[in-house]
Amino acid sequence: MLSFAVIGAGRIGAVHAATVAAHPDARLVVVADPYGDGADRLATAHGARSTKNVAEVFAASDVDAVIVCSPTPHHVDHIVAAVRAGKAVLCEKPVDLSIERVDACLEAIAGKEDTVMIGFNRRFDPTFAEIHARVGQGEIGPLEQLTIISRDPEAPPASYIKDSGGIFRDMTIHDFDTARYFLGDIVAVSAVGQHLDPAIEAAGDFDAAVVTLTAASGAVATIINSRHCAAGYDQRLEAFGPRGALEAKNHTSTTVRFAGGSGSDAAGPYLDFFLERYTEAYRGELSHFIEAISTGTAPSPSLIDGREALVLADAATTSARTGTPSRLDRVATTA
Amino acid sequence: MLSFAVIGAGRIGAVHAATVAAHPDARLVVVADPYGDGADRLATAHGARSTKNVAEVFAASDVDAVIVCSPTPHHVDHIVAAVRAGKAVLCEKPVDLSIERVDACLEAIAGKEDTVMIGFNRRFDPTFAEIHARVGQGEIGPLEQLTIISRDPEAPPASYIKDSGGIFRDMTIHDFDTARYFLGDIVAVSAVGQHLDPAIEAAGDFDAAVVTLTAASGAVATIINSRHCAAGYDQRLEAFGPRGALEAKNHTSTTVRFAGGSGSDAAGPYLDFFLERYTEAYRGELSHFIEAISTGTAPSPSLIDGREALVLADAATTSARTGTPSRLDRVATTA
Amino acid sequence: MLSFAVIGAGRIGAVHAATVAAHPDARLVVVADPYGDGADRLATAHGARSTKNVAEVFAASDVDAVIVCSPTPHHVDHIVAAVRAGKAVLCEKPVDLSIERVDACLEAIAGKEDTVMIGFNRRFDPTFAEIHARVGQGEIGPLEQLTIISRDPEAPPASYIKDSGGIFRDMTIHDFDTARYFLGDIVAVSAVGQHLDPAIEAAGDFDAAVVTLTAASGAVATIINSRHCAAGYDQRLEAFGPRGALEAKNHTSTTVRFAGGSGSDAAGPYLDFFLERYTEAYRGELSHFIEAISTGTAPSPSLIDGREALVLADAATTSARTGTPSRLDRVATTA
Amino acid sequence: MLSFAVIGAGRIGAVHAATVAAHPDARLVVVADPYGDGADRLATAHGARSTKNVAEVFAASDVDAVIVCSPTPHHVDHIVAAVRAGKAVLCEKPVDLSIERVDACLEAIAGKEDTVMIGFNRRFDPTFAEIHARVGQGEIGPLEQLTIISRDPEAPPASYIKDSGGIFRDMTIHDFDTARYFLGDIVAVSAVGQHLDPAIEAAGDFDAAVVTLTAASGAVATIINSRHCAAGYDQRLEAFGPRGALEAKNHTSTTVRFAGGSGSDAAGPYLDFFLERYTEAYRGELSHFIEAISTGTAPSPSLIDGREALVLADAATTSARTGTPSRLDRVATTA
Repeated sequence: MLSFAVIGAGRIGAVHAATVAAHPDARLVVVADPYGDGADRLATAHGARSTKNVAEVFAASDVDAVIVCSPTPHHVDHIVAAVRAGKAVLCEKPVDLSIERVDACLEAIAGKEDTVMIGFNRRFDPTFAEIHARVGQGEIGPLEQLTIISRDPEAPPASYIKDSGGIFRDMTIHDFDTARYFLGDIVAVSAVGQHLDPAIEAAGDFDAAVVTLTAASGAVATIINSRHCAAGYDQRLEAFGPRGALEAKNHTSTTVRFAGGSGSDAAGPYLDFFLERYTEAYRGELSHFIEAISTGTAPSPSLIDGREALVLADAATTSARTGTPSRLDRVATTA
Repeated sequence: MLSFAVIGAGRIGAVHAATVAAHPDARLVVVADPYGDGADRLATAHGARSTKNVAEVFAASDVDAVIVCSPTPHHVDHIVAAVRAGKAVLCEKPVDLSIERVDACLEAIAGKEDTVMIGFNRRFDPTFAEIHARVGQGEIGPLEQLTIISRDPEAPPASYIKDSGGIFRDMTIHDFDTARYFLGDIVAVSAVGQHLDPAIEAAGDFDAAVVTLTAASGAVATIINSRHCAAGYDQRLEAFGPRGALEAKNHTSTTVRFAGGSGSDAAGPYLDFFLERYTEAYRGELSHFIEAISTGTAPSPSLIDGREALVLADAATTSARTGTPSRLDRVATTA
Repeated sequence: MLSFAVIGAGRIGAVHAATVAAHPDARLVVVADPYGDGADRLATAHGARSTKNVAEVFAASDVDAVIVCSPTPHHVDHIVAAVRAGKAVLCEKPVDLSIERVDACLEAIAGKEDTVMIGFNRRFDPTFAEIHARVGQGEIGPLEQLTIISRDPEAPPASYIKDSGGIFRDMTIHDFDTARYFLGDIVAVSAVGQHLDPAIEAAGDFDAAVVTLTAASGAVATIINSRHCAAGYDQRLEAFGPRGALEAKNHTSTTVRFAGGSGSDAAGPYLDFFLERYTEAYRGELSHFIEAISTGTAPSPSLIDGREALVLADAATTSARTGTPSRLDRVATTA
Repeated sequence: MLSFAVIGAGRIGAVHAATVAAHPDARLVVVADPYGDGADRLATAHGARSTKNVAEVFAASDVDAVIVCSPTPHHVDHIVAAVRAGKAVLCEKPVDLSIERVDACLEAIAGKEDTVMIGFNRRFDPTFAEIHARVGQGEIGPLEQLTIISRDPEAPPASYIKDSGGIFRDMTIHDFDTARYFLGDIVAVSAVGQHLDPAIEAAGDFDAAVVTLTAASGAVATIINSRHCAAGYDQRLEAFGPRGALEAKNHTSTTVRFAGGSGSDAAGPYLDFFLERYTEAYRGELSHFIEAISTGTAPSPSLIDGREALVLADAATTSARTGTPSRLDRVATTA
């Protein structure tokens, strides 16, 4: 049984608070958010206490672990403060938008890396995890090509886009982690960005992109992103090897199919959005974190994994802007 | 917020106890089972108290509602005792194996029918419920043919079969309720039973069956049952009308598909068994019960629905044994 | 190389003429039809000669085989005349609407049965044939349940219905043959007919039906028919056994799937109608006929198979009208 | 009715000869091949004459059109000779492996471009053509992303690889044409080649590749290739736009699905290989050619389309070898 604090009472903080509250081995103790009454409402809903003073979380003697759901610019500070206070940390992605600050964070927590986990929740999605396990068991032979299609239902507002770090650090970062999860070290990144929506272009970002990653193994991953998708949250993946392919199809809320004058076999739209699509992944992520912290083993994905995904995002950003692939000048630490 | 007692700490009692414990508007107060230490273990797991004396449940002032998961022969006694004690009741199917006892039960609780619900959980499965709603909205026009395929993964032991009341009362009863849910009153029943497994035949039962139901509306439902299915728990349904068809496909645990030397597009086995397949249905059933009891409206399916499903099961049993269709000599009360 | 005459220049005659013309081992010599100029047009299209005098076909020295596509009441006369003239015969289903006349036909051609084949083309559909072969190889174990869903896109005109012999002899007859193809001898038939369309009821027929067939083996087949289907020609089949199930899904003209605001994975309508759905079956049927006649082996399905399907149609008609299952009073000759 | 000569009696020559022979508006007159007795056998099979002297084809007064199926290095010579002799030409892809020779060909036939068609048969595949038509009708809005997955069942022998011009000119060339068919002019090409099979690497080629094409419209196409695929000939395509996506799924020989202990919904392997997968495409291609030549309109894809696909293949080859994307220095002529 681990006692949790959640920092940040926004959308993703609410997900984690609810996941903790429902978990048999977790207890929600406190929710902290300096702004508005979000922390209060969230804490009340789950029988926890609230505070507007984040420092109270680190000082609290009844808190074992902290889930960092604050805005990205605060992530590093909250990680470091929590680790120094002897708390385990589960931090939302991305660690930060600056590699320098991530490196400073790594230095600050040196020796305590095994108490920090980064929230790349998709590794814990049962569908993706099943493919990962079957690939690991050799079912398709050595992985040769990985295709990830990842499209959000709708673009966020331009105001969000502006401070997001750009599509590669904000959205593709999940897919970069997925690619590393399947392929290990990446040695080259080539990205094409698309300007389809003038509002997003005006905010300085691409709204769609295709990224090609070459792994040290010789395998190649392709990531296809879009900020919009009419059918919902499009989350597919295909692992291909010499003995076969394993494909993750989209999820729908039921298995109903319609046949009529307009055609046949029509399913509903894709589960929309990440809260619905990745409900089980958040639960699995929390279980893994609790298990690792409780047994003193290193949780995964680690802060290093968070750093490597950001390295890929930076490389993709540069590649898309310059029209030149980026070769990564050092071999990344394997996941 | 409703306070619950669960009577019966077996497999299905455990499902209901866990569903109650996890429900935001429900509280598990007591688990009662006269045999062994099942009640104790189940109560402990969910922070409730336990008892071997079922009478305590009816006497308890902190119990609003009782979920009856005792063996079938006790259902009626427990319903009546609970209702007399002013408790609401959610009773597992079937109400009883004897129409006479069901009728006695109805008489005993006369005037309080709206406090009793029968656990035909499939009505609350999101896939079936979506089809029901879309049929209700006229998407396929008037329902003409309903096809239900319902196969268990494996036959229960012959010892269970012996006391089960036979396949129609034990297994098909769910499908009879589903047929009534979609088609309303049934006027004729024709059943063919199959003897494929000598052990089940020796226990006096069929192990597979096909039943045809004619509705008052002129629609026809076909139910195809088997006690075994190699691919798991086979739970399909198709509603067909002049403007189209709505089909419920089987559920699998992930959306992974494999393609290789052996073929393509291969999904995993069907969710196996009812606890996995109908997890959400149990939750939805409980929500409906709480909502109905809290607002003083009649929950559905009612005890009358439980009776009507048994009437169909009896008619099917007779038809399969005699080789003659049964006409129902009175128009059943509509669901 | 076999030389063919086609008798009857209607829709089905045109199919057979084109199939013969395109077949590498067949040659179309003459098309005969006493009415209108259909024979002339069809013959011209395929470089054959035409006649309004059907007797010429039997007299022609350059005709090896006759495909009988005349109206059903003429089938028996044309079979007998062709056989007496030493021609092989491929006759469209049904042989006749009267068992007495079929028996008279059998008597008339006694000793020459192996030169006559009945056009139950679905046996030669690659999808159904693959399932039949895999069942035969034991992939699912002994066949226990066979489910056939067979729905036409639209009802024929009432004028056609009137002389059709009724849904069981006209439409279900294909499914009866399919059931026998998979299950062998049938010992009991139970049918429910539906009156959904008043025009068809006025013409004295059902427009939908569910039939249950019990095989001597203990297996049960269920046939679900409708005269209309909004999504096209609905032709499905599922063979179920202890080790698995083999399902024939509907065919569409392409593999295109649409995902958008209305849902996902939407395919086109079903191939519509039998000419499209069973193109390959007609070709395979002809190849089998040519192979059998050329090598002096018995083609299958035989005239006996044609008779047995009619016996089942008669039994179903009686069952649907009386509400009582029909037991077949003799064990049918196995297919 | 057009009279055809086929030059080249190899595998693809046989396909075209058979397609011509079976086409109602085409007549196969002569098959020419200087080597062995292939021409003789092929001609005999279809009732045509044969020759080892290709020049006879151009001289023949009864030949309207020539299908060029000779080895690639002869394509240009055969096109030019045929056009000069006043014959229409359908030439297999690629036109040549050298842009200079293609340009010389264009110059040599100047003024007669509308009598030459290049055999990018996939444009005539009913599945791809349906998607193209629906995109053209605006069903998904402006095309934003096109994903093509194209994998051969097995790599050809190294001896073939050596003279093939490399994967991009030999295999991807089809996908380049498909990308242009959907997206029009391409302005940038980025390719990653993979060395997975040492034998193919030794032959100087990649055996898998991922190519990203940016269109003048801003749309991006991704092509994923492999020389092997355990499940058969993997030919998929997805067109994505703001209002939806249209996906071409793989084709299988039947619609049979298996469910059993190993899982559910398992289809057969993909149609294997191009003769099976694209049978209808060859037929449609021929019909289009006949229609265009007969009516004096320009057939499509044209020789210019053949040139543009080669430009993309060259650009991809350079990109994959240098690790740098290629910008196309001129706007290509639209298809």
